[in-house]
Amino acid sequence: MQALVLADTLTYRTDFAEPVPAADAALIELSLAGICATDLELAQGYAGFRGIPGHEFVGRVVAVGDQQHNAWRQQRVVGSINIGCQTCPECLQHGPEHCAHRCVLGIRGQHGAFADYLTLPVRNLHPIADTVPDRAAVFTEPLAAALNVAEQLAQRPAGEIAVVGPGRLGLLIGKVLALAGHDVVMLGRTPASLALPAAWGLRTGLALDCPDNRFACVVDASGNAAGFAQALRLTRPRGTLVLKSTFAAGAALDLSKIVVAEITLLGSRCGPFAKALELLAQGDVPVETLIDGEYPLRDGVAAFAHAAQPGVRKILLSR
Amino acid sequence: MQALVLADTLTYRTDFAEPVPAADAALIELSLAGICATDLELAQGYAGFRGIPGHEFVGRVVAVGDQQHNAWRQQRVVGSINIGCQTCPECLQHGPEHCAHRCVLGIRGQHGAFADYLTLPVRNLHPIADTVPDRAAVFTEPLAAALNVAEQLAQRPAGEIAVVGPGRLGLLIGKVLALAGHDVVMLGRTPASLALPAAWGLRTGLALDCPDNRFACVVDASGNAAGFAQALRLTRPRGTLVLKSTFAAGAALDLSKIVVAEITLLGSRCGPFAKALELLAQGDVPVETLIDGEYPLRDGVAAFAHAAQPGVRKILLSR
Ligand SMILES: [Zn+2]
Ligand SMILES: [Zn+2]
Ligand SMILES: [Zn+2]
Ligand SMILES: [Zn+2]
Repeated sequence: MQALVLADTLTYRTDFAEPVPAADAALIELSLAGICATDLELAQGYAGFRGIPGHEFVGRVVAVGDQQHNAWRQQRVVGSINIGCQTCPECLQHGPEHCAHRCVLGIRGQHGAFADYLTLPVRNLHPIADTVPDRAAVFTEPLAAALNVAEQLAQRPAGEIAVVGPGRLGLLIGKVLALAGHDVVMLGRTPASLALPAAWGLRTGLALDCPDNRFACVVDASGNAAGFAQALRLTRPRGTLVLKSTFAAGAALDLSKIVVAEITLLGSRCGPFAKALELLAQGDVPVETLIDGEYPLRDGVAAFAHAAQPGVRKILLSR
Repeated sequence: MQALVLADTLTYRTDFAEPVPAADAALIELSLAGICATDLELAQGYAGFRGIPGHEFVGRVVAVGDQQHNAWRQQRVVGSINIGCQTCPECLQHGPEHCAHRCVLGIRGQHGAFADYLTLPVRNLHPIADTVPDRAAVFTEPLAAALNVAEQLAQRPAGEIAVVGPGRLGLLIGKVLALAGHDVVMLGRTPASLALPAAWGLRTGLALDCPDNRFACVVDASGNAAGFAQALRLTRPRGTLVLKSTFAAGAALDLSKIVVAEITLLGSRCGPFAKALELLAQGDVPVETLIDGEYPLRDGVAAFAHAAQPGVRKILLSR
């Protein structure tokens, strides 16, 4: 089958063996996949992943590993990406995303979605309503991650929240927080980066123009150490800073403000797929305006190069 | 008067002008002062402070700036160290420790306690019960800081908490958490560092022997970037890590686990003096066993050198 394969570099191959689903899994034919910041980091060597990357996808179940799962056949699906051991305390208490032995689709120990076919346990699958097109459903995973931020901030009264980094994930977070009733300000480094946030009806500003300690609640979705430093600078004493972006290890950081100003830093990762699919069905988040390009798998290397350009939000891959 | 003065280096002087208290302040004659990690960092250039350092002290009020404060005269006192503007939103909402315009005794904009005399606003002063000796009362400030950690963790059910860094502050934190009903484990780098924690009745262990993700709640009182990394390694997914120690800016840190494991990082700083003085009066915290040496002010430079040695917990300065 066709696949993008990450070894020392990313290459397009046509001779990759089609996967065979285990008894608890389904074989899924790819419809559409999204390249995300994590994929770009994997391509830079982050986490040492080797294999087929890709974890944001829409596809159709074409086979199942055991006939008890026949109901999934022909179903259009998205899938959550963590596959836990199902027996450790983390799995039992928090679910698979914190299992120390987990595989993660296209990130750790499991081939991902940038191929003609992938497999996932059926317990990870979610059917998609017919009213949600592929080009919207492909945003389920990042939208779920954005919803997780809103859930972490759910105890806070509705109020002003700054989102640093108006990229794809930042925009989804900003929109979800606005829908939850917060007064969101999207902060970027350039006026150009703020055009789409404004078109989505969000208030915008340049991060550098904001004085120190301006916001009681800040979300860092910048994806880089400089953005994190900016977000921390803007957080008020005793305020809350949500850290949504991983950036390369070993960045020189100054955490002293966290202590001196008694900041609460909340790490945030995966979120609820079912809720994200509901939100997409309601049509309140104009996710398709995030798409900056769509490439066939055979042009995947060019697609990665496009996705890595500054200001580009979402590049899709199709079969 | 005698004073230790930090310019490019720390020097002992006898010609420093005695301070004059403002109308809202008292003149305090020093009895005993403690050298803390922050003082050692200031001597290394941290925060660019120039002047008399010292913020942990016991003294006696010998004059007041206005006679309405005469009741304070001859009172034996400790004092909280932040002096806010009393008008900004931070002052009104959180108190002086988060005022952007604050002075901090011996740390920022205000000469400190390593001298014959110091001044502080009377609103910062706390009288000391006669039953509490100077050598215990001098621990009020770090004990208050330890109590702040317990208050931040007050919503948690009593459970296992690891304290990384069995130094002076770590020990105080561990003891306060144990008194609050938690099952505390003090983690150090060497068996020698764990002798005093064991003598205080606390469970101990070597940090390196603990597996990843061992504790749902960890306090980093190590005072260095390596200790922070160790504490983060030991924190379970969705766990809480209290950051109590500032360390030099620009350390190369990897925060990706905070995101991936959805850790809550709580910065922690100053705490309640009145509660600390009560605890000292009860005699439940054997603070005097933390004292590793006592020097007169004139030997202050040697005292700093002693305080900077590994494993040394508390060095005191007296007039
Ligand atoms: Zn992703
Ligand atoms: Zn597990
Ligand atoms: Zn101190
Ligand atoms: Zn103020």
